[in-house]
Amino acid sequence: MPESITALLHGPDQPGIVAGVSGWILKHGGNIIHADQHHDAREGVFFQRVEWTHEDGSDPVGRASSFARLAEAMGMQVRTALSSARIKVVVMVSTAGHAFHQLLLDWHEGDLPCEIVAVISNHRHLERASGNYGVPYYHVPVPREPKGKGKGKGKGKGTGKDDAEREQVAIIREHGAELIVMARYMQILSETFLEECRAPVINIHHSFLPAFAGARPYHQAHDRGVKLIGATAHYATGVLDDGPIIHQDVRRVSHRHTVQDMLRIGRDLEKVVLSEAVRLHLENRILVYGKKTVVFD
Amino acid sequence: MPESITALLHGPDQPGIVAGVSGWILKHGGNIIHADQHHDAREGVFFQRVEWTHEDGSDPVGRASSFARLAEAMGMQVRTALSSARIKVVVMVSTAGHAFHQLLLDWHEGDLPCEIVAVISNHRHLERASGNYGVPYYHVPVPREPKGKGKGKGKGKGTGKDDAEREQVAIIREHGAELIVMARYMQILSETFLEECRAPVINIHHSFLPAFAGARPYHQAHDRGVKLIGATAHYATGVLDDGPIIHQDVRRVSHRHTVQDMLRIGRDLEKVVLSEAVRLHLENRILVYGKKTVVFD
Amino acid sequence: MPESITALLHGPDQPGIVAGVSGWILKHGGNIIHADQHHDAREGVFFQRVEWTHEDGSDPVGRASSFARLAEAMGMQVRTALSSARIKVVVMVSTAGHAFHQLLLDWHEGDLPCEIVAVISNHRHLERASGNYGVPYYHVPVPREPKGKGKGKGKGKGTGKDDAEREQVAIIREHGAELIVMARYMQILSETFLEECRAPVINIHHSFLPAFAGARPYHQAHDRGVKLIGATAHYATGVLDDGPIIHQDVRRVSHRHTVQDMLRIGRDLEKVVLSEAVRLHLENRILVYGKKTVVFD
Amino acid sequence: MPESITALLHGPDQPGIVAGVSGWILKHGGNIIHADQHHDAREGVFFQRVEWTHEDGSDPVGRASSFARLAEAMGMQVRTALSSARIKVVVMVSTAGHAFHQLLLDWHEGDLPCEIVAVISNHRHLERASGNYGVPYYHVPVPREPKGKGKGKGKGKGTGKDDAEREQVAIIREHGAELIVMARYMQILSETFLEECRAPVINIHHSFLPAFAGARPYHQAHDRGVKLIGATAHYATGVLDDGPIIHQDVRRVSHRHTVQDMLRIGRDLEKVVLSEAVRLHLENRILVYGKKTVVFD
Repeated sequence: MPESITALLHGPDQPGIVAGVSGWILKHGGNIIHADQHHDAREGVFFQRVEWTHEDGSDPVGRASSFARLAEAMGMQVRTALSSARIKVVVMVSTAGHAFHQLLLDWHEGDLPCEIVAVISNHRHLERASGNYGVPYYHVPVPREPKGKGKGKGKGKGTGKDDAEREQVAIIREHGAELIVMARYMQILSETFLEECRAPVINIHHSFLPAFAGARPYHQAHDRGVKLIGATAHYATGVLDDGPIIHQDVRRVSHRHTVQDMLRIGRDLEKVVLSEAVRLHLENRILVYGKKTVVFD
Repeated sequence: MPESITALLHGPDQPGIVAGVSGWILKHGGNIIHADQHHDAREGVFFQRVEWTHEDGSDPVGRASSFARLAEAMGMQVRTALSSARIKVVVMVSTAGHAFHQLLLDWHEGDLPCEIVAVISNHRHLERASGNYGVPYYHVPVPREPKGKGKGKGKGKGTGKDDAEREQVAIIREHGAELIVMARYMQILSETFLEECRAPVINIHHSFLPAFAGARPYHQAHDRGVKLIGATAHYATGVLDDGPIIHQDVRRVSHRHTVQDMLRIGRDLEKVVLSEAVRLHLENRILVYGKKTVVFD
Repeated sequence: MPESITALLHGPDQPGIVAGVSGWILKHGGNIIHADQHHDAREGVFFQRVEWTHEDGSDPVGRASSFARLAEAMGMQVRTALSSARIKVVVMVSTAGHAFHQLLLDWHEGDLPCEIVAVISNHRHLERASGNYGVPYYHVPVPREPKGKGKGKGKGKGTGKDDAEREQVAIIREHGAELIVMARYMQILSETFLEECRAPVINIHHSFLPAFAGARPYHQAHDRGVKLIGATAHYATGVLDDGPIIHQDVRRVSHRHTVQDMLRIGRDLEKVVLSEAVRLHLENRILVYGKKTVVFD
Repeated sequence: MPESITALLHGPDQPGIVAGVSGWILKHGGNIIHADQHHDAREGVFFQRVEWTHEDGSDPVGRASSFARLAEAMGMQVRTALSSARIKVVVMVSTAGHAFHQLLLDWHEGDLPCEIVAVISNHRHLERASGNYGVPYYHVPVPREPKGKGKGKGKGKGTGKDDAEREQVAIIREHGAELIVMARYMQILSETFLEECRAPVINIHHSFLPAFAGARPYHQAHDRGVKLIGATAHYATGVLDDGPIIHQDVRRVSHRHTVQDMLRIGRDLEKVVLSEAVRLHLENRILVYGKKTVVFD
């Protein structure tokens, strides 16, 4: 298969964008293999994902940046990627292994076109497993904060959590990570971290957001007596469990299910939802605008 | 098929309840055709649904009340019902017809073992349709309240909404209704109404509760960018959209779906979820305890 | 909202189709509001659905046919439709009302952009209901064939079923029907009928095809002990239950469900699946090729 | 938690079974913690799963066999198990690892109450992974048969496949396996094997059976243009893909999904469906009768 170029565009809706884009590709000898667009009529915003090949295959980088200039000239924000690219991913975990193993196994299977360059954890539980997958493992303990939920802000310099985040950021930058995946990493990340790591962060929340944000969602769900439990993959923002939603799924439960059962069922739900969200990101299928996503699946 | 007796029991868990119940039925010549029990280990509560027949079929009313005395003697709360019973149901609607038609059609089809004795509405939209189904229709206009959301409390006597609720209660009592179904009735019922109508009230909320309680849930869902929308049938309590959940279901949506699309998809979801919840109630499959339900399906 | 034009194209894949289509629309002052394309790489076929408006709104018919000529010049097969168009639909039913009512109610609600011009049935069960919806009802009894399954072929002229089909075709043509919907019409239509009615026929089969084709699928499903039951909407062809699939859905069942329960659950499944399939057809979202569909949802 | 005893009974329906069972447990100082029964009215068969504890906890083995004698005296077939029991399981795999890893990880997580004693494969792909889980791996190559599908019968003694099956059976017996799980083992097992291994065999078929039995089901599904793909866990019998179904699930697909996409989506489906089926078996929740299962979940 020849190298393909994918572009994600969005900007103010106006006539002629599709024609401009497809005309440019045709003129430069390209062949569109997938194109999908969306108009948000309420907001007046145009979104497009277009993927194309050039038969001669020469200079895809030059062509991608040349296309980007065209899109910008049409007033669009644009991101391009080559099908051969494998962006660098850092996975953050705590003790639970289900989402971690799903990501690593899917990656081995070739389903996640990326390079998993490091695992960071506040525990040692998955160190040996990480080694088996051939991925370096960084153990960065996060001390319990003395009191309150603090989130590491206004604690005076040098709280333990601040230090830990600085160490995490250093590892992330050292590996040149372009995506961070929180595979049930059970610490709240500070806004400082989210800014400093300079890469999007995908998180899996173990509930059907916006229901049951925050801690122990299956306990909350059990107490409320819901008949379905869910999982939500989203981009992390400074506001807990409030970032743009990428993917969600649910499973049926009943009064027979204890919290333990929900945790078990939830594991299968979470890991598949997270892996799917990561795949959508890696295939350049997601555009974020405001608090929402456009997912070109 | 001979008449069957169904009993719903719950109370403090203790050894010997199942043996006591099944022993009594055997001794009285009955044959259990369905029995299901549940133990809430955390709360120490026992729940049972048991359905049985007597081959001779004589005096089911006497036998049911005799059984109830046994259950009470074991410290259980109990409710019994005969399979031939058809409880009286009042349906409340506003302008939207989808949930209304589903209920009336399912009832005609024989899927809802009840007697729909009246429809009450604050609008005239479904009057002719109600007539086609042969059910009396009561138009009880509810005046807009002057300001605030008031819920009819502390408004001084004689606000229009109080008067309307009194009229509704009178109709409900006159028909001897044993169940009220709010089939997208778009007014908030006061606590006074809920007490006075002396019958359980099943409501359909057009979201996956507890997400998006309150007004215009599909608009809320659209703004939040969720990837699944839902519907929730629950018993109404004094707290809006907070009563025990009976049944829920969801459908997948994407950025392509406008609020209008969600409303359309939601209609099919809501009507089926509501009708299923009503059927479960009519078949005596639901036990409420605290804010939750045990549904013996 | 101004009139929009929708075009469905398909043909041999080749560079420049998207550019040609969007360029033409731009040149003629149109604005694309939705465009979606698909390439079947294995078969080398290109599929596109494009919908656009002209701000001046003048002569949409002329513009649509002018566009069609362009598409044909590019070697594409093309079908165009105006957003204001309401194609004429004939609904065929037997005794079961669930799918019939769903269609008629969705139509009343404005969810099905068509004109339901007639109902044809081999029974009288839904005659009064049809009258309530204001749609003429034609009772065309279909005599049982003397023996075998015959399908009306090779039976010599003038069997009762042949006569009935001739009468049905006459009604369909008289009303100028452009779509036939079999809403649980329980007779097998002959190939002659399918040719003579000169309109696509959408059928709902009450199983998850290709499992359980043919008669009494819920009985088959019950006997096989499946854990999910389904419904399939498809275009009817000369081979029973073998036409291109438009839409499918399933529900979970268990050993507790009798065949009667499956029939009841199936009713809610079938009616929603059928109505959705009809809506997709009416919105010009379906392209058929070979035994398959491309559904631009 | 004290040891609990689970009994699975079935036999001709008759009055007094529930009373007999619960009376016996009460008399012997037991406390029922879960009981569920089912009556197949068409077949006249009664099924029950009952789980109970004795507070003193003494001699559970003796009590279980004493209960079994009671059940047999009532004409029931019965199987009992202790909650502390961990039956021995052999997993059979070929090259694909998804179902294998799910089982091994769920087992490590404590979700599968068993002892995985060996992995048998006709390939070496998962040997190292098996070692990482601490489970012995047996590589038993299965030579391609010279022609036809033969299934190892009537081939004269000593075909390669017969030899391989004999070796597999020897390993299975040596480890005392009480359950065989085919986690995408891609060889058809002979009837001789199924008899000789003296343990139930659970298989995962990568389609929604009975649709697409046999080879390459996703290719079949893609060719047929279905809108949902599925996976089915079932007990293996002498007839390919025809054994009693334990669990099924589906995912939505569209024309956009290639066979490769379906294979990928299917992996997540298959592994979760298989693991759930194995868990149901290990928790003694499944009764097989005829071609069907009663699953007490």
